[in-house]
Amino acid sequence: MLVRPKGGILDPQGEAVERSLRQLGFEVGEARVGRVIDLEVDAPSAQEARTQLERMCEDLLANPLIESYEIELEERGS
Amino acid sequence: MLVRPKGGILDPQGEAVERSLRQLGFEVGEARVGRVIDLEVDAPSAQEARTQLERMCEDLLANPLIESYEIELEERGS
Repeated sequence: MLVRPKGGILDPQGEAVERSLRQLGFEVGEARVGRVIDLEVDAPSAQEARTQLERMCEDLLANPLIESYEIELEERGS
Repeated sequence: MLVRPKGGILDPQGEAVERSLRQLGFEVGEARVGRVIDLEVDAPSAQEARTQLERMCEDLLANPLIESYEIELEERGS
């Protein structure tokens, strides 16, 4: 899952990254910093896995007031 | 860019996520937590953009001893 600060929400980590990169001489536009969470779940279908992961994001992994999340599924053999 | 703890490197954030999800009743395998950094760069080609982003990862955004990084490019119109 990718969890990112929503647009318009202050992102101090992103601002620090921008500043540091510019000090190192890189020309960059806006930077935003979020989290990537790699997780193994066991589910009978991709749809069921997605439903589980959505609930985990809503309940724990993302703060829906200030963060958005994106789920990317990768299938593994059993 | 996606920056993740390398395999075998201790990941306390991932362990906390695993524990918390299990306490909430989710059955999950290993969890690993890293960072996603979204960044705008201006480059004449995708190859040049990738080279710039690799240098940023090596110089600042990832700690190559304990973290690996992955670059995903998305083209924008000028």
